[in-house]
Amino acid sequence: MKTIYLDHLAATPLHPKVKEAMIQHINTIYGNPVADYSLGQQAGQVLEQARLQVADLINADPNEIVFTSGGTESVNHAIKGVAIALRERGRRIITSNIEHKSVLNSLRTLRLLDYQVTSLDVDNYGLVDPAAVEKAITQDTILISLMLANNEIGTIEPIRDIAKIAQKHQVVFHTDAVDAVGVIPVDVKDLGVNLLSLAANIFYGPPGVGALYIKKGTPVWPLLDGGMQENKRRAGTENLIGLVGLGVAADLARLEMPARLPHLQALKERLTRGLWERIPDIQINGHPNQCLPHLVSVSIKYVEGESLMLMLDEEGICVATRSACASGSLRASHVLIATGLDFATAQGTLLFSFGRDNTEADVDKVLDVLPPIVQKLREMSPLYKKINL
Amino acid sequence: MKTIYLDHLAATPLHPKVKEAMIQHINTIYGNPVADYSLGQQAGQVLEQARLQVADLINADPNEIVFTSGGTESVNHAIKGVAIALRERGRRIITSNIEHKSVLNSLRTLRLLDYQVTSLDVDNYGLVDPAAVEKAITQDTILISLMLANNEIGTIEPIRDIAKIAQKHQVVFHTDAVDAVGVIPVDVKDLGVNLLSLAANIFYGPPGVGALYIKKGTPVWPLLDGGMQENKRRAGTENLIGLVGLGVAADLARLEMPARLPHLQALKERLTRGLWERIPDIQINGHPNQCLPHLVSVSIKYVEGESLMLMLDEEGICVATRSACASGSLRASHVLIATGLDFATAQGTLLFSFGRDNTEADVDKVLDVLPPIVQKLREMSPLYKKINL
Repeated sequence: MKTIYLDHLAATPLHPKVKEAMIQHINTIYGNPVADYSLGQQAGQVLEQARLQVADLINADPNEIVFTSGGTESVNHAIKGVAIALRERGRRIITSNIEHKSVLNSLRTLRLLDYQVTSLDVDNYGLVDPAAVEKAITQDTILISLMLANNEIGTIEPIRDIAKIAQKHQVVFHTDAVDAVGVIPVDVKDLGVNLLSLAANIFYGPPGVGALYIKKGTPVWPLLDGGMQENKRRAGTENLIGLVGLGVAADLARLEMPARLPHLQALKERLTRGLWERIPDIQINGHPNQCLPHLVSVSIKYVEGESLMLMLDEEGICVATRSACASGSLRASHVLIATGLDFATAQGTLLFSFGRDNTEADVDKVLDVLPPIVQKLREMSPLYKKINL
Repeated sequence: MKTIYLDHLAATPLHPKVKEAMIQHINTIYGNPVADYSLGQQAGQVLEQARLQVADLINADPNEIVFTSGGTESVNHAIKGVAIALRERGRRIITSNIEHKSVLNSLRTLRLLDYQVTSLDVDNYGLVDPAAVEKAITQDTILISLMLANNEIGTIEPIRDIAKIAQKHQVVFHTDAVDAVGVIPVDVKDLGVNLLSLAANIFYGPPGVGALYIKKGTPVWPLLDGGMQENKRRAGTENLIGLVGLGVAADLARLEMPARLPHLQALKERLTRGLWERIPDIQINGHPNQCLPHLVSVSIKYVEGESLMLMLDEEGICVATRSACASGSLRASHVLIATGLDFATAQGTLLFSFGRDNTEADVDKVLDVLPPIVQKLREMSPLYKKINL
């Protein structure tokens, strides 16, 4: 049975050219990029090539790119790094209720160290109101951290508007753009942010590899203290094999994006339309237009998302029930609850995210297989029977 | 010209079997280990296999192993994690003057957050005195962090004795064993430590991959906050490709160590003897017996280590002038100064570290090439001429 992989927000398969570059690197180069002998310099060149490729993807200067072990480290670095660097100026940080756990839990840790957090509500689409951000800024606010695109409902936030407000009040602004960079066009200069987090495995690069954009002059303390790597901003021997993959993936994302976007958009529309047509009592989550092109979040009433996911797996279809990082627990998604969804409906949510290898036939298979599964599960649901009597 | 690589403390070339396993993984498996569908579970199995392999190398239980992005992250995690977890109990940490920068700079950051650090002196061999550790313990001491083997002089510290003292006073004990694990036998149960840091690229695994041993029950707050990976101890999508490499490298280290050790020891002895015989006015640093089997630190008077390194590079020989992470600056090593070496002599230090591919012929090449280079440089040194008039 062919596997239909529809969980590209959790992990993307490596692009064949990424594989090729990583394997070639594994077979040819070693040495520590900080070493001054020629073997070290060779490794250093590989590193700087990757840095240039990532910088090009988001319109940054290469020296504004700090490599990390992925989106989570980037986010932790940005938030905790600003908090420590500006601890004398103030201790308040503004965020929203629909951020990724890496943001929310970084802030939880900072609370233990006497920082305060203002967490903003979102509307039913998951949008943060720029006016609410401005209203929340106080004298002691040192940082605003808001995501560019939500990883569970796909809503794209008005980051450019909020960045202007942050700049006006001289507050550092970080955007967690992990689920956006490499999927949609992202330009740090256009957005006007100070810090931006990204991860390779969202755009066909390897897992556990990422970067943090740090605009020149932004005060950020290191998260990983130690040696002089990354211009003293992130210590530790670099994951060169992974960074080669990140660089090539960034290059391909930049070059192939014009072709990838309409492909993804078409699959998304086909699935959304089909779901509406074939399954009653559903809700599509997130903003209808300001949203990621490859994500469909659907809440199917009177069923458990976990059961749907497992039954789809038996048909060779891989989907998520909520954000990958929240999986493993059966609690409802904090994002869906924040958009006003009731707990029971949130529990019946499936998250489809498409990739470059997916086809219309994949969508059609889902649309063939899912409705009978839903029907079968609903027939076992006491609540469904009660309502439909 | 054949390259003779003698900087295995900075980075080791991948073991052929590590390469093979990583390439096979790149070509076959993807998916997010936290996902519940079968593709995710397949990735999860790969992860747990690597965990078992690392646990076996140091005699830990697999659930005591937390994967990290390398030695630096492991050390940061251990030190900052205990500091935050035990902040209500006390704020003093004991360490030594010869630790790696990842330890020293983690402590520098904690000082900003109102922690206090006691840094112990070492003797001329670089040994920490267990009695001095015991004397330094106060009511508010929450952590002792001392390295197992020094990365610049190779001296192996009396960790077992110090662990007993830490246990007696109920102080958490972390050992930075990055330069020891995979090179010499390390057994966490025998050592009696609570926390131990290790890195793959010391034993023919990939760079940017490591682990932290956390003994069951040890209070440690996460360094990377976010999702539920690593049993909630380290968030972030795992670097699976790298971890496959770490696992296989750990397995090979365990199996091949009995053969590797005498090989390295013989090369070290050959080089040490040859240096004594052929170059006057040198000093071999570190403890003569309690030391790493593959490292020779030699201070050559009246010359600059940097010049020696560059001239050896021209002959195809890669060596370090000091710890890889301290390279890039011309300051003298804090380790050598701490052992009582004068600044000028410390500047003339070369660090040879052998690996499994090195041969006696490599050593002989160094012994042929180095003496005339030293002689040439000394003849240009005003200090040398003055003394030898």
